[in-house]
Amino acid sequence: MNTVDIIAKKRDGFSLSESELAHIVRGSVDRSIPDYQLAAFLMAGRIRGFSLEETIRLTLLMAHSGETMDLSGIPGIKVDKHSTGGVGDKTSLVVMPIIAAAGLIGAKMSGRGLGHTGGTLDKLESIPGFSTSLSKAAFLRQLEEIGLAIVSQSGELAPADKTLYALRDVTATVDSLPLIAASIMSKKLAMAADVLVLDVKFGNGAMLPALEDAGKLAALMVDIAKGAGIKASAVLSSMEQPLGRAIGNALEVREAVSLLQGEGPDDLRELCLTLAAEQIFLAGLRSTVDSARKLAEGLLQSGQAYERFCAMVRSQGGSVDFALLPRAEQILEYRASREGYLAGFDTAGLGRAAILLGAGRQKKEDRLDFGAGFVLARKIGERVQAGDLLLEIHGHDPATMAAVCRELDSCIRLTDSPIEKPSLIEGMIRG
Amino acid sequence: MNTVDIIAKKRDGFSLSESELAHIVRGSVDRSIPDYQLAAFLMAGRIRGFSLEETIRLTLLMAHSGETMDLSGIPGIKVDKHSTGGVGDKTSLVVMPIIAAAGLIGAKMSGRGLGHTGGTLDKLESIPGFSTSLSKAAFLRQLEEIGLAIVSQSGELAPADKTLYALRDVTATVDSLPLIAASIMSKKLAMAADVLVLDVKFGNGAMLPALEDAGKLAALMVDIAKGAGIKASAVLSSMEQPLGRAIGNALEVREAVSLLQGEGPDDLRELCLTLAAEQIFLAGLRSTVDSARKLAEGLLQSGQAYERFCAMVRSQGGSVDFALLPRAEQILEYRASREGYLAGFDTAGLGRAAILLGAGRQKKEDRLDFGAGFVLARKIGERVQAGDLLLEIHGHDPATMAAVCRELDSCIRLTDSPIEKPSLIEGMIRG
Repeated sequence: MNTVDIIAKKRDGFSLSESELAHIVRGSVDRSIPDYQLAAFLMAGRIRGFSLEETIRLTLLMAHSGETMDLSGIPGIKVDKHSTGGVGDKTSLVVMPIIAAAGLIGAKMSGRGLGHTGGTLDKLESIPGFSTSLSKAAFLRQLEEIGLAIVSQSGELAPADKTLYALRDVTATVDSLPLIAASIMSKKLAMAADVLVLDVKFGNGAMLPALEDAGKLAALMVDIAKGAGIKASAVLSSMEQPLGRAIGNALEVREAVSLLQGEGPDDLRELCLTLAAEQIFLAGLRSTVDSARKLAEGLLQSGQAYERFCAMVRSQGGSVDFALLPRAEQILEYRASREGYLAGFDTAGLGRAAILLGAGRQKKEDRLDFGAGFVLARKIGERVQAGDLLLEIHGHDPATMAAVCRELDSCIRLTDSPIEKPSLIEGMIRG
Repeated sequence: MNTVDIIAKKRDGFSLSESELAHIVRGSVDRSIPDYQLAAFLMAGRIRGFSLEETIRLTLLMAHSGETMDLSGIPGIKVDKHSTGGVGDKTSLVVMPIIAAAGLIGAKMSGRGLGHTGGTLDKLESIPGFSTSLSKAAFLRQLEEIGLAIVSQSGELAPADKTLYALRDVTATVDSLPLIAASIMSKKLAMAADVLVLDVKFGNGAMLPALEDAGKLAALMVDIAKGAGIKASAVLSSMEQPLGRAIGNALEVREAVSLLQGEGPDDLRELCLTLAAEQIFLAGLRSTVDSARKLAEGLLQSGQAYERFCAMVRSQGGSVDFALLPRAEQILEYRASREGYLAGFDTAGLGRAAILLGAGRQKKEDRLDFGAGFVLARKIGERVQAGDLLLEIHGHDPATMAAVCRELDSCIRLTDSPIEKPSLIEGMIRG
């Protein structure tokens, strides 16, 4: 099969066959196709698009391009979750324990922070002793024993995506819905659970800010999951402001623990229960979403979800004395310069500011400051008096913190007139 | 300037500014832009296109991306010619001597055979002793002394084209009219003559078989030349059959010499006179094309053009005893299996068959068999009896020649009903 002919076919807007897509995926793994040909293919695909059928094929080929994680030997219904990435999004730390407490198998391979968004692995690793690098065998054993594990993706999972993703980043071919969907879903399908609930973000802190784009991506990913025989739904949730009040690894774990202990902010609680209820419903444990939601609420309130979270932390070597979570050396308060209503955040800007504090990496090899980040004292719609605390800056270097403080003026917007609380969940897409 | 942003702009169909195009051209020469980014740029450009203004800018930037050949120190009007490539196209060997005999300066940097088409350099090098690698100084001196030189392009001329052309070939981005025009014209503009006449081929032996495409390319190249301040025209000439009767290096030189001596085939003579007349007219030596044509005819008939050709051959070290031109060891006759009319050639197929005989290179490092090729005994429209000679196969290896002979059945088409002689010249595009 001739690579140039396949590129030309996509260039001219034709759909590619299974064997043509397989040639591309294989060549991107064994590197028999040079980067410049993959780049031309990606640009042709970015401009001409891919049909749903092609996208499903491409995703499955990418999913099977390397090692896969076979969960079929584990009894029970395996449930996965994925978020397209947000600021302050610690839902996995709450949702997966809830569904494990419900008797489902919560199996999740997570990533690290990417761009301005945080990563579940980084958050969990702020727990002293916690390890996210489990062997395949240890991962499966833990799933059997306590029904819950959150681990790092093996580098050998969906290696085609690794090559293509790196190229897309430098060839202006990132913003292709089929390629985004294939990238995300190939990693999910390499460890095929029975049930997958996706949290697709929109708003100024999301990868795809426009609700319409997020909706299209959500529908596409649900279709791909269906095409692969997985029960899937996608929640469309707002990233117009950070989720909850904590941004930064240990700060977020503390907030998640607080929610698991029956407290925690309303928006985070609402999204976690929505996601968990959808998983329980799709798994067939309850026949309606309402009754699934009641089950999730009960498991959260009764402490059973918290107990399951602690079991996972212990099993992965972490300490459940959460008072030991790292704390920042310094806290700087950012206060309102005038009265008004909190009207909006530059959510991605806050995410980037958190990286400057050490909560994320500027370069791949950077070490994180687990205690660093922000704690929001106000959220959109809340009344503010001049001098009121708007947020706390947690860090260790006063000069950096002062610089971040100055940048916050452009990240937080106040208005004179009252403003409504924005809605958190804009819809649910079911397969 | 950010390469990804420039790629994205072209991806979204916007025109690029001078400085953005300059960034791409510079990066393709100093290799600061990796191939995968150039490939993405080329595919975006292939699909979205380039405006005329962009194409002119890009061409000029490519023309000035390396060394240039400055002819301004040479007195007289400098005249160049370019063909998009054909089978049996030896017009340069006749046209350039005619215009030199007219008192113009015939300055031409040529290329080697490409794909199924022959190259002027290879043809000239079949003349014993002839050298096409002249130093810049020697080239300029010869132009001053005898008003005529045909030499090889320096590798340092338009180096951006070298990089981009090599990439286009392997990324399915060859067939872009703006990129084709920019590639051809950048090399022409790196040695800017005052007058340029282009011979744009159409038909089944041409790079662009459709007359419409050839016409668009011709118009685009004339516009680019005009944008660069050069007087230019483009002839649209047929490659539905080989030009003249000889295909292959020494065979073609012999045919050109025969035309310069007042004989030679009609179609070759017609195209040569058309091209030369247009050059003379554009140079302003005559006020009408008709009178320019008469001048060209006179210079050909009188032997003045031949004399100039011989002066060039001598000056470049070659022997003008053309009886010494290499001859094939073997000649195999290909005869008609039935009676009828010669209806058509697979011209590109004949070109490829000539390469198999050794007239062209299969790999870059192949040595040519200068004597190898074909001599056509019949052309389209001519009556054929069963057993009539259709063409001679000239070569040195009987097995290869027999294999080529078998392939000719699919390269030559006979019909029962009379067929008209196809027209050779379909138009002339003037700036």
